[in-house]
Amino acid sequence: MRVNGTPMRTIWPSASRTVMIIDQTQLPHQFAVVELKTLADAAHAIKAMLVRGAPLIGVTAAYGVALALDQGADDGALHAACALLAATRPTAVNLHWALSRVDQVLRPLPVAHRADAAWDLAAMLADEDVVLNQAIGRHGVGLIESLWARNGRNPAQPVNILTHCNAGWLATVDVGTATAPIYAAFDAGIPVHVWVDETRPRNQGAGLTARELNWHGVPHTVIVDNAGGHLMQHGLVDLCIVGTDRTTATGDVANKIGTYLKALAAYDNQVPFYVALPSPTIDWTIRDGVRDIPIEQRASREVTHIAGISAAGILTEVAVTPLGSPARNDAFDVTPARLVTALITERGICPATEAGLAALFPERVQH
Amino acid sequence: MRVNGTPMRTIWPSASRTVMIIDQTQLPHQFAVVELKTLADAAHAIKAMLVRGAPLIGVTAAYGVALALDQGADDGALHAACALLAATRPTAVNLHWALSRVDQVLRPLPVAHRADAAWDLAAMLADEDVVLNQAIGRHGVGLIESLWARNGRNPAQPVNILTHCNAGWLATVDVGTATAPIYAAFDAGIPVHVWVDETRPRNQGAGLTARELNWHGVPHTVIVDNAGGHLMQHGLVDLCIVGTDRTTATGDVANKIGTYLKALAAYDNQVPFYVALPSPTIDWTIRDGVRDIPIEQRASREVTHIAGISAAGILTEVAVTPLGSPARNDAFDVTPARLVTALITERGICPATEAGLAALFPERVQH
Repeated sequence: MRVNGTPMRTIWPSASRTVMIIDQTQLPHQFAVVELKTLADAAHAIKAMLVRGAPLIGVTAAYGVALALDQGADDGALHAACALLAATRPTAVNLHWALSRVDQVLRPLPVAHRADAAWDLAAMLADEDVVLNQAIGRHGVGLIESLWARNGRNPAQPVNILTHCNAGWLATVDVGTATAPIYAAFDAGIPVHVWVDETRPRNQGAGLTARELNWHGVPHTVIVDNAGGHLMQHGLVDLCIVGTDRTTATGDVANKIGTYLKALAAYDNQVPFYVALPSPTIDWTIRDGVRDIPIEQRASREVTHIAGISAAGILTEVAVTPLGSPARNDAFDVTPARLVTALITERGICPATEAGLAALFPERVQH
Repeated sequence: MRVNGTPMRTIWPSASRTVMIIDQTQLPHQFAVVELKTLADAAHAIKAMLVRGAPLIGVTAAYGVALALDQGADDGALHAACALLAATRPTAVNLHWALSRVDQVLRPLPVAHRADAAWDLAAMLADEDVVLNQAIGRHGVGLIESLWARNGRNPAQPVNILTHCNAGWLATVDVGTATAPIYAAFDAGIPVHVWVDETRPRNQGAGLTARELNWHGVPHTVIVDNAGGHLMQHGLVDLCIVGTDRTTATGDVANKIGTYLKALAAYDNQVPFYVALPSPTIDWTIRDGVRDIPIEQRASREVTHIAGISAAGILTEVAVTPLGSPARNDAFDVTPARLVTALITERGICPATEAGLAALFPERVQH
């Protein structure tokens, strides 16, 4: 994607074997590139959500291992790096998928070769993510195109797409997952308009999705998380597309808290509800998402305080709750497969069912 | 209710024929009492939401007419005052109910008597609101008590009640509507815990409901609007109680934007979803809420900016969206009657159906 006209990814290695990322906690107000020099830097970047989004977390973790192995690459160091990184975020399955792949590739190698291999592997995972997301875009754009065609291909009547949180460019290495079909449609000249859920408590819709759509020139409107049901009742949403942090083998979807509420509203109003996912977000070992996907509890301060830019142009945090009122902060919820119209994967679109996923990924099915 | 130990209402006349209100836009951070001296002050207080909540809006409008008639009470002045106040907020039916009652009572009176009568009438409407809300509390407390009994009357296992927005003391003259059963249960020694939806964009849950529960000592936890469905999926909500700004003769309920999403989640998880309402919020002329209740569009700045208290203790407004990203701000949504377990009115509890309401209010049915 482009930032002020310059094509860039969300993560890239520097010439001096460090890793550059965009500090997403400062968006949308400030565009700051941060250098990760150590394993601890990488772990902090994931835990404090300088980087977030399941695919980007996975790639950042792979680079974190590379940073660690530059300081020593024996079995103990490899194990310690993977363990530290795995503990940063419990819900995103890509993190564990990436770390397990890194461990499998590196462990058989001679210690002296591991660090270079780790850098190569991280770069490969980054490239893979882009390829997967581009494939999701190719498959998903047809859904948008057919809704536009249903409305007579009227250039003045855009397809209205609702999305929650940020499963965009900024959640991945490039292109995004939920946004991949949207960018593909926009770039193909299909008129689209995106309803951007603010996505409290971290405002990743208002802060990140709006930011990247704005950069790319895609028409959009920010709404509070409360508004989507009302818009659907009044015919103002043609389809929903969201991402996922973990998908069960049966098609249940863990995504940012509040996704479930939008899926209920979509179901109640016969609005198609799609989930875009690269296959690394599928956890083939889990069948009941509500019961078995661990949901991260984050600091209550994310609920009680909000950061934004003041009239003086200064990034400022303000309290929005009274002193003495506690808050609870579950980061994700699980949308049961029965509410999901279909899954958009890099291999195509399938029903959100065990059979649907198994047909696309027969080699991954666990017996 | 009590504020720092002092019993008070949300609105009261001063000895010098002005009207005192609590400026709710400064809550929860600052407790400021504001004096309304003119009709324009009253209209501004309603439109700018220094007072809000359907019952309190109605009473404030009645006092606004009294303020106007002190300056001249002929038919033209009475009509102009009612028209100005009626235009402040389109969705709350109490506003129109109160103004129509005021007009009906005052118009037949000699012009010289109208101003005094207006003050008396406003005070009577305020007292009536308190009586209605206390009756709602008496009827509703049984619902909470029976859920506590179902769980074995365990003092350590509170009844978990989710509410959205503020239909509390601060939305009425006293006691509140949705909170009336909660305060009644708490005061009767039934252990309760309230999940307080933050209620973006104006944060009337985080700012007002948390504030008044905190003042009264009722255990509560603030959550983002996205969280309720997840809590219900995990058995952490025993019942929902919300208020309403307008209820159709068939039981559809217009309430703060996002109420519909919570009702969907409650229905999906077999959690009882109650709406507490004094009968003035019933619009007996409307049968299809989604189609026929006008939904107020408010300024997009309420979405793009949030006010809170800074680390320096200063009430500060910050922008949370990128410059150039538009926002949309529908203030209410409509929850279809099919999702409402029952209505709690001052005359008792009834199904959210035309027959249910007609059985309690036979004299109001329009043929």
